Amino acid sequence: MEIINRSVAIKDHVEGAPEESDFELRTDVITAELTPGSNDVLVKNLYLSIDPYQLNRMKKYSSSHETSNYAAPLVPGKTIDGYGVGRVVASAKAGFEKGDLVAGVIGWEEYTLVHEGTMLNKLSTTEFPLSYHVGILGFSGLTAYGGFYNLCKPKNGEKVFVSAASGSVGNVVGQYAKLFGCYVIGCAGTKQKVELLKNKLGFDDAFNYKEESDLKSTLKRYFPDGIDIYFDNVGGEMLEAAVSNMNLFGRIAVCGVISEYADAKVRASPNMLDVVYKRITIQGFLAGDFISQYADFFALTVGYLRSRKLHALEDISIGIESIPSAFAGLFHGDNIGKKMVQVAEE
Amino acid sequence: MEIINRSVAIKDHVEGAPEESDFELRTDVITAELTPGSNDVLVKNLYLSIDPYQLNRMKKYSSSHETSNYAAPLVPGKTIDGYGVGRVVASAKAGFEKGDLVAGVIGWEEYTLVHEGTMLNKLSTTEFPLSYHVGILGFSGLTAYGGFYNLCKPKNGEKVFVSAASGSVGNVVGQYAKLFGCYVIGCAGTKQKVELLKNKLGFDDAFNYKEESDLKSTLKRYFPDGIDIYFDNVGGEMLEAAVSNMNLFGRIAVCGVISEYADAKVRASPNMLDVVYKRITIQGFLAGDFISQYADFFALTVGYLRSRKLHALEDISIGIESIPSAFAGLFHGDNIGKKMVQVAEE
Repeated sequence: MEIINRSVAIKDHVEGAPEESDFELRTDVITAELTPGSNDVLVKNLYLSIDPYQLNRMKKYSSSHETSNYAAPLVPGKTIDGYGVGRVVASAKAGFEKGDLVAGVIGWEEYTLVHEGTMLNKLSTTEFPLSYHVGILGFSGLTAYGGFYNLCKPKNGEKVFVSAASGSVGNVVGQYAKLFGCYVIGCAGTKQKVELLKNKLGFDDAFNYKEESDLKSTLKRYFPDGIDIYFDNVGGEMLEAAVSNMNLFGRIAVCGVISEYADAKVRASPNMLDVVYKRITIQGFLAGDFISQYADFFALTVGYLRSRKLHALEDISIGIESIPSAFAGLFHGDNIGKKMVQVAEE
Repeated sequence: MEIINRSVAIKDHVEGAPEESDFELRTDVITAELTPGSNDVLVKNLYLSIDPYQLNRMKKYSSSHETSNYAAPLVPGKTIDGYGVGRVVASAKAGFEKGDLVAGVIGWEEYTLVHEGTMLNKLSTTEFPLSYHVGILGFSGLTAYGGFYNLCKPKNGEKVFVSAASGSVGNVVGQYAKLFGCYVIGCAGTKQKVELLKNKLGFDDAFNYKEESDLKSTLKRYFPDGIDIYFDNVGGEMLEAAVSNMNLFGRIAVCGVISEYADAKVRASPNMLDVVYKRITIQGFLAGDFISQYADFFALTVGYLRSRKLHALEDISIGIESIPSAFAGLFHGDNIGKKMVQVAEE
């Protein structure tokens, strides 16, 4: 059986902020017949994760390319791989049957032939919307969990600041922190996002960083007693301002530096004198570092979701052709919550 | 009995690199009669510790002022306090007798009246030169110990880079690291220092950073397999170069940022993309954080000294009047090893 498969690739390496025109939508014909013994699984993709880090993979060179599987450089003209959820169409692999719902590394395309050695797991529950397995129960949630509980080492009552707080990871970090018993303030880039953080996600306070002229003073105003934990999704000037406002033995988990992805000239220059005297820890991480904690993460998060203490904030575009605008929009702050593209109806 | 006491103070707040003319030498007459019940101890000072961090205390404003006792701002015209070793001249405090050798917070003066609540301990051994208790067995040694063993979390065979490696702390860190089983390279600012690191202190290699035009390439050349641990004493451009050359899960202990003390405009802009993807930890610390490990530090270090595996690198000026030049010289790289001033003969 032959299947029409539409897929998305970069036309050329992308430097700077991405634009829709950087991408091409291709149409190929693939076969649904798998080679016996190949261990291949053909997946019909349903929801694809659209994440800022992919921009680093699109660059001709980034120091990140050498550091992990997630960061491998993309090849122009070749389908972009990424995390998502789909349904098995055909399987040559034991344990996977036609109709199974799976999550793993698939592609920015309608169908992915997943080869042996690529992460692919059957969903353990159908209790929640499928999209949850891409976002809050997927890598975004695990990123939030790993960074907050492991790197930030929270204590009850501590003051937590989250940047890009309405983003895929930030919103979950803020909610975890509130549920843990911290005082949490987030920043975002629109009035609507700020309202949402305060009114829907239970942040103690939130502000629009675009309305602030001196972030150091802003943070001083919002945290008169200082910041104990900063969960950094943006880098740049916000990181500098946070370092200035950290308390003794403060912890900074560096999850992402989106302000620096699209412009390599943007660099944070945190005051290292503060780092020394305030004994600040600044630590980078990737979600993959916490795969061994997945069961704990899943149990906690599912529990919170069941009791409706945790809100899954999602921003879903429809159709494979919406991928370029969905991705480019990440860098204009278009998304509210976890950005995904639904490629097909369930 | 009256005693002539000469002391050193700043004339005014010091901004930028210190000069000898920033200091004044004053002569006062003090009494050796202590008030009974005061718990005061009068100490004749012998060796004073001369450390770069004092410059931060001399500034009119530094964010460090609010962070710890060590960092309290200095008052122009008032004797500068600091770590040192002396002999008790008179005591109104139980447990301290005339003639006892002590180490603690005394002053840049010939005699210090140490009040209750100020750190003062009797020396536990006279096995070593008194100066050792200021340097390698004092706070410099404890700083090296605390930073290297606690923050750097060394593993056998790891690649260690130490900046200001012939300085008071750096030289001890490098020696600890070699004794631990690491591969150690240091940098310093003169040919003589570089030779000393290689030939006398057993560093695997060393280089003169002043002869290098591109520190990032320099470190790449010296560490073709990357850096696992960077013990940072300087900040600035060297920190940026180290971050670029760190391995996955590398650790950076930020002990000091001497390049930024004398010029607040100097700032490191480490590539945070590297921090994220390489999961680098950058952590500041002060020796005082490791006071609880003092016994372990002392036992290890004394053992190494006894077996002559560890070399005490000292740079001692003579006489109270040499303090201004000794201090200013720290910022010109004049000292080789732990800078001290011997105020009086033992």
